Amino acid sequence: MSGMIEPIAKLINQLSKLPGIGSKTAQRLAYYIISQPEDQVRELAVAIFNSKKQTKFCSICGNYATDDPCDMCRDESRKNGQLCVVKDPRDVAAMERMREYSGQYHVLHGVISPMQGIGPDGIRVSELMKRLASEDVSEVILATNPDVEGEATAAYLARLIKPMGIKVTRIAHGVPVGADLEYTDEVTLSRAFSGRSEI
Amino acid sequence: MSGMIEPIAKLINQLSKLPGIGSKTAQRLAYYIISQPEDQVRELAVAIFNSKKQTKFCSICGNYATDDPCDMCRDESRKNGQLCVVKDPRDVAAMERMREYSGQYHVLHGVISPMQGIGPDGIRVSELMKRLASEDVSEVILATNPDVEGEATAAYLARLIKPMGIKVTRIAHGVPVGADLEYTDEVTLSRAFSGRSEI
Repeated sequence: MSGMIEPIAKLINQLSKLPGIGSKTAQRLAYYIISQPEDQVRELAVAIFNSKKQTKFCSICGNYATDDPCDMCRDESRKNGQLCVVKDPRDVAAMERMREYSGQYHVLHGVISPMQGIGPDGIRVSELMKRLASEDVSEVILATNPDVEGEATAAYLARLIKPMGIKVTRIAHGVPVGADLEYTDEVTLSRAFSGRSEI
Repeated sequence: MSGMIEPIAKLINQLSKLPGIGSKTAQRLAYYIISQPEDQVRELAVAIFNSKKQTKFCSICGNYATDDPCDMCRDESRKNGQLCVVKDPRDVAAMERMREYSGQYHVLHGVISPMQGIGPDGIRVSELMKRLASEDVSEVILATNPDVEGEATAAYLARLIKPMGIKVTRIAHGVPVGADLEYTDEVTLSRAFSGRSEI
């Protein structure tokens, strides 16, 4: 006897499968959930179920969508010639939070990673090339992460796209706003230095 | 446009209502959940829903139960005269994890807290007194938390139960196993000192 009934033990087991949720946190969350009114618990369960059930991928940009093509790909006002290439859907959400970009997106669903055996065929590169051939794109903004794999993917894509006569840009690397020079690593600082602009 | 479709936004909103889950964590969890296979997402949703749906309270001990009375209250082998009084159901789970107690439980569902306007009537004290009058209890173990309210509740219950001729004990306070004397607060250390036993 564990002093814990089966539905609670099951819930703790399920919650502890989530990333960053250990058994103690899972236990705390489980007892919290049980202490909530039934309709609120139902709402949470339904939100989880629906999030998966109602989410598909947009066949054009590859972002999560409720319809195919997604709202952003159908939005004529976003067809301004700019195409932002990101690693995954959460990067689209991050870019949109900044409220300064109004073009279209292309989600790669991964980056080139020889260590994990992921080559250009393992991510949505061919779909990107097809779009560039058929759509009216004047600038491709490479917004993959500034890590080894993100950089390699950006370099690979730039080499592929530039010969098509399309402008290719990369998001700037530098000191994050609010950070301290003293605690900034040398690579970032050197990027910030070489990427300096006149004011 | 937030760059996030409604089912995902709803899920993030629901997850961020959980204790200790901020908006960033909720977002990370939501994208993780969506990336899982549908049957695993369903399992999580069902576990959440069932945990509430299938959980009632045992009318005797007050613990979470699937049946009333609960397995522990029906278990004749646990009727050994010992009754452990705890604040809430998760304390029963904690006591059971230690695997050394084999008696019965009584869950108060709170502690006396004048600051929050909770008196003896606000917790399951009268149910406890009824049990003591009808059941064959030889020892009441007060296992409320060693904080101000837990101590006050234990003192109150001890004053109430002792005149009935029932042995009343309190769990020991002292230095936690693995802790360092140097970093132990004075109150804990003084409790550990006064509670010393011969070896």
